[in-house]
Amino acid sequence: MWQTAPRVDMAGPRIYLDYNATAPLTASARQAMIAALEAANPSSVHAEGRAARRIVEAARREVAALVNADPAHVVFTSGATEAATMLLSPDWTMGRAPLRFSRLYVSAADHPCMLSGGHFAAEAVEKIPVGADGVIDLAALEQALARHDGTEGLPLVATHVANNETGVIQPTAEIGRLAKTAGGVAVFDAVQAAGRISIEISTGYVDFFILSSHKIGGPKGAGALVGASDLMMPRALVKGGGQEKGHRAGTENVAAIAGFGAAAREARLGLAEMAGVRAKRERIEAVIGEILPDAVVHGERAPRLPNTVFFSIPGMKAETAQIAFDLAGIALSAGSACSSGKVGPSHVLRAMGFEDQAGALRVSIGLQTTEAEIEAFAEALGKIVAKRRAVTAAA
Amino acid sequence: MWQTAPRVDMAGPRIYLDYNATAPLTASARQAMIAALEAANPSSVHAEGRAARRIVEAARREVAALVNADPAHVVFTSGATEAATMLLSPDWTMGRAPLRFSRLYVSAADHPCMLSGGHFAAEAVEKIPVGADGVIDLAALEQALARHDGTEGLPLVATHVANNETGVIQPTAEIGRLAKTAGGVAVFDAVQAAGRISIEISTGYVDFFILSSHKIGGPKGAGALVGASDLMMPRALVKGGGQEKGHRAGTENVAAIAGFGAAAREARLGLAEMAGVRAKRERIEAVIGEILPDAVVHGERAPRLPNTVFFSIPGMKAETAQIAFDLAGIALSAGSACSSGKVGPSHVLRAMGFEDQAGALRVSIGLQTTEAEIEAFAEALGKIVAKRRAVTAAA
Repeated sequence: MWQTAPRVDMAGPRIYLDYNATAPLTASARQAMIAALEAANPSSVHAEGRAARRIVEAARREVAALVNADPAHVVFTSGATEAATMLLSPDWTMGRAPLRFSRLYVSAADHPCMLSGGHFAAEAVEKIPVGADGVIDLAALEQALARHDGTEGLPLVATHVANNETGVIQPTAEIGRLAKTAGGVAVFDAVQAAGRISIEISTGYVDFFILSSHKIGGPKGAGALVGASDLMMPRALVKGGGQEKGHRAGTENVAAIAGFGAAAREARLGLAEMAGVRAKRERIEAVIGEILPDAVVHGERAPRLPNTVFFSIPGMKAETAQIAFDLAGIALSAGSACSSGKVGPSHVLRAMGFEDQAGALRVSIGLQTTEAEIEAFAEALGKIVAKRRAVTAAA
Repeated sequence: MWQTAPRVDMAGPRIYLDYNATAPLTASARQAMIAALEAANPSSVHAEGRAARRIVEAARREVAALVNADPAHVVFTSGATEAATMLLSPDWTMGRAPLRFSRLYVSAADHPCMLSGGHFAAEAVEKIPVGADGVIDLAALEQALARHDGTEGLPLVATHVANNETGVIQPTAEIGRLAKTAGGVAVFDAVQAAGRISIEISTGYVDFFILSSHKIGGPKGAGALVGASDLMMPRALVKGGGQEKGHRAGTENVAAIAGFGAAAREARLGLAEMAGVRAKRERIEAVIGEILPDAVVHGERAPRLPNTVFFSIPGMKAETAQIAFDLAGIALSAGSACSSGKVGPSHVLRAMGFEDQAGALRVSIGLQTTEAEIEAFAEALGKIVAKRRAVTAAA
């Protein structure tokens, strides 16, 4: 249960089913953070500084272990968006030599921080379509890379491992292989995949993973880019000091990094329990199918994360349903948090060819989600739909 | 006393005199952070998201109040280095129109994050000399701005309010006036000045202040750029989402921002007690003068922060002395944390014309520093100097 419940001034306990927006802080992440709140500056050479340095390096090992990487190839940032902005750059280095990327290939269903193209000019960003199931069109990617003009620079391929709205999992090995075949580099936004499915950097097709602490049960304010090596690196985005081996200046956010490390450890160990989360998701989908036989579960036939359901209720705006759930004490979202407040369906649904302006509701859960919470969701959905039908019938 | 003492595995209490590297987390900042650790995503529209949004906006008002700014003109970042990198850019906007800066004018004694020049090409960054007292050479700045070629773009003047190593305070009103006269914009790194001297944005000569949470008793992981208005803004550095009115993408670090807000409030109220800090600093300087009549206190004759002493011991390397203090249980630094590990004196000392390779020791204190700690410092300094003399005499 969401621990900020008392602060939202609502009677009764709240149910939080919006893990993809931010996952509740785990107990071990909280403990690690609190233990590191008074840490000194890790760049200081005195005992306090060295103690802070040890906290950062211990966390680096845990974050590396989550994706089976070398801790030396982890660069901590303030979050995944910063890591993406840093990686999506035409200007990299290979050792001391400059390395130039002339074109960025992203998927049309990527997170806004990837679609923004980072430092690439808008005309140098090519969106690869996804199918109705949300999976990237590999043939279209292959064709786009075949058209790549290598005289100006290399191709940079960047896409998500799993979609934040639908949970659809991309064929990363194939994407990576296509990028390699074209002589390019492959960057994967693993923000939603990490801790939910097993992902490894050491399989030859991934050059970089982007990770976020607060999506895996750690605190906000920490993220990382994790490389298969540090031979090819994007230029520093935040400049001025020698922190993170010169890749990211600024005093390290020791407490958030400590919490990130603890969450990464828990996420790694928690992978073994994901079958239980998947069973809960299947129960959610069964409930939706019972109450709303005509509901559409987006990406239903594609491989999906075990924790995410994105569904549309025919004839009912997702925003309206989201507010009704909120009033019933259940937090879920209509699309991603980032696109909240925008009218109409998300760019992810549009990319999948779903044009119904009603949009969709996202239920995203985690290891802490209980069966009782799922049943409360089922009850609330039943009431909301019944009320809607009564209103429609009376009109 | 530094609260991480037990973790550095040293017998007896430690004494922390390195506030300019990172100030100890204040009790109210700690409390605000802990209360916000479980905050949801402030972009979520559900009750949990709205509660997180309220925390961020309350902190924004406190940070604005510290420098008498409009909360609407505060942009939160992951820290001061990010804020500096964002501001030191040739590409700004004025409303919707592009605004171009062709040349950056910094002081030779600035922090590395300013000297790096952000997004300016190295040849477009001009370092204005400082005098032996560490104060910027206003005539040199005026001449440099008179030479500015306005056909390519406007001049951007960026310097510190107070130096992180010496504590020397710059004539910001004069610097700002020169920038304005030249048709330029003035950015001030107020990281070390905030909470130690009164600084206000609403006096006509400051366009932007750069602030850091962890230098004023807040947590690491938060900083801000605070504008006199939002008419002229640098382009976003971290891209992808609409957070911070589109100026800084990425989920807000709610807990760190909450702590920053609490620390800003405390720093504002604590200004009234800075006379006591100054008295302690004067006691430190008196002790240094008694034990080491030939010691040099850098910037001694310039206006300085009430909390900083930067001094050289003739014939003794600052690094050696720093280690001796550390072993004696006292944390202070030889130069800034950022330049730690580098050989020889800092760029600040070189800019002041001090070429002695021995470098200097920095003692930086705060409201929590006690008289007993100052006396312990005095005792340790006496012992370190006596031991050094004995070694030298025996040689």
